[in-house]
Amino acid sequence: MPDRSNSSRAGEFDLIARHFAPLSASALGALNLTDDAALCAPREGFEFAITTDAVVAGVHFLADDAPETVAGRLTGCNLSDLAAMGAVPYGFTLACAWPRDMEEAWIAAFAAELGRWVERFSFPLLGGDTVSTAGPAMFSLTALGEVERGKALKRSGAKVGERLFVTCTVGDGLLGLRAAEGKAQALPATARNYLLDRFRAPRPRIQAGRALIGKAGACIDTSDGLVQDVGHIAETSGVGIEIDAAAVPLSAAARDALAAGVATLEELLAGGDDYELAFTSSAEIAALGETAHAGNVDMTVIGRVVEGAGVRVLDAAGNEMKLAKGGYSHF
Amino acid sequence: MPDRSNSSRAGEFDLIARHFAPLSASALGALNLTDDAALCAPREGFEFAITTDAVVAGVHFLADDAPETVAGRLTGCNLSDLAAMGAVPYGFTLACAWPRDMEEAWIAAFAAELGRWVERFSFPLLGGDTVSTAGPAMFSLTALGEVERGKALKRSGAKVGERLFVTCTVGDGLLGLRAAEGKAQALPATARNYLLDRFRAPRPRIQAGRALIGKAGACIDTSDGLVQDVGHIAETSGVGIEIDAAAVPLSAAARDALAAGVATLEELLAGGDDYELAFTSSAEIAALGETAHAGNVDMTVIGRVVEGAGVRVLDAAGNEMKLAKGGYSHF
Repeated sequence: MPDRSNSSRAGEFDLIARHFAPLSASALGALNLTDDAALCAPREGFEFAITTDAVVAGVHFLADDAPETVAGRLTGCNLSDLAAMGAVPYGFTLACAWPRDMEEAWIAAFAAELGRWVERFSFPLLGGDTVSTAGPAMFSLTALGEVERGKALKRSGAKVGERLFVTCTVGDGLLGLRAAEGKAQALPATARNYLLDRFRAPRPRIQAGRALIGKAGACIDTSDGLVQDVGHIAETSGVGIEIDAAAVPLSAAARDALAAGVATLEELLAGGDDYELAFTSSAEIAALGETAHAGNVDMTVIGRVVEGAGVRVLDAAGNEMKLAKGGYSHF
Repeated sequence: MPDRSNSSRAGEFDLIARHFAPLSASALGALNLTDDAALCAPREGFEFAITTDAVVAGVHFLADDAPETVAGRLTGCNLSDLAAMGAVPYGFTLACAWPRDMEEAWIAAFAAELGRWVERFSFPLLGGDTVSTAGPAMFSLTALGEVERGKALKRSGAKVGERLFVTCTVGDGLLGLRAAEGKAQALPATARNYLLDRFRAPRPRIQAGRALIGKAGACIDTSDGLVQDVGHIAETSGVGIEIDAAAVPLSAAARDALAAGVATLEELLAGGDDYELAFTSSAEIAALGETAHAGNVDMTVIGRVVEGAGVRVLDAAGNEMKLAKGGYSHF
């Protein structure tokens, strides 16, 4: 739609050509970003998984975050949604709203980081829109992935008797955010840097998701926090889920953070930004060994699917823990 | 990505369920908007056309525009991109950034108008994201259409000797915007209302685009203005294009507006927001008769494809007219 601000439309075309067109080079159907739409289709026997995530400065990222962090977290969180469906990244469209005083150097660094994700995940830019705004910067990314037709992992497939698993470790995202906000000074620099990196550069578990096809009953990524996201599985599957708090895997840095009082265990279980996969499966842990290896990531049993509804978090004695954060309180 | 503002995440889920989930009812692959991604695939022998358009309050729409106008123009301009590729609407994802003080009644009216487009074009909501912003409202829509594999209309197919056509009439969008801004008081109310409607409710030329497959060399929609958009065809096709200004079809209201001095002919040729199709073809106008009928829209010859580069607008005597607006000046 025509931009009725004073910004130059020709300037928009130049910006696209200079910084964003190279990101589409490997996608023939992107038509070099010069047509009304891009053309794309999944391989024979596959379908697309499609997901849209939007981020706004001051809400989803910190106003002084580096452009690399913003680009990495935006791309990482969308790819994590694809991982949770068991899909292979295919390509993406991107809408950018730039404040009028945004420096081109920021845009260039943002696009360069996107380019690293394009390369790493064979995930080219298919098209998009750039507009100006009088408000904060905003980005909306629509990611396409390919998954075998009818085989996608869903939230709704959990069955009573399956066990609950999570990849890697829980709570590092929340702690990384605290470190970014200067609230983790009690930790040594090595732990702080580890957590910052976990927060700033999510590792979408694409290979793990692929390997879980046919093995997982239900799957979700833990972007909103372990307990809330497991709650989504429970709700859409019509089951209850128990989490053994003591079994939840924590990184060494997270254990340090607990000891130093940077966060409580309850906060780690409820905190977001981890972008790990939580899934249910009846497979033995040994049978998932190959799966774990495929994704180069550990998988840990942390609970079970039971009759009923909602999520219960149990302490080592089997008593229900009360978690303060309200996000999941309606379960 | 988690929202770190004070707004309630549970509130977001409720908003989606109440107003947006009904828009996905006809799309099985949307998984009722409750999974990490939606699933979709084009029919056998088809591919997807995919396009993203973003709009920001104060830039692309007027701050006091009715929610129905915002929803209609957003949907209309994306569907117009699909029409320009010859694609049938398939579905869309939507990212909405709401100012924190946005009233739910506005959101409800916006979603209800989207619902009318969903119905009219069999164009269900597949997924999306809703976030809050401290800035102006912003919407980003990613539209998917289906088109026969390898047959999509493109900007790059114009060949020397083809004629240039446009659907319906030119300039009504610009005049409708002026009417909305109170700058068309010289016109009678009937003409003003006609133009306002043309501006507020674009008619994506889906049927016309479908009928042009195999008949048009190049095609584009005139969202940025006739001359600029025809310039895109010239540039990507590596040809020159001449437009006969006297042949460009104008509505009765536009002719009244010219007579009343509300706009000049040059402004109508350069103005945006028309969402008509401009295309090149070697077919006779009679052979396009059926095409025109299929789209229930007139098609008029307004020029020709020639050797060279860029767009020249000719007056009735065949002399080149100088157009003031700069958007296309680099051609």
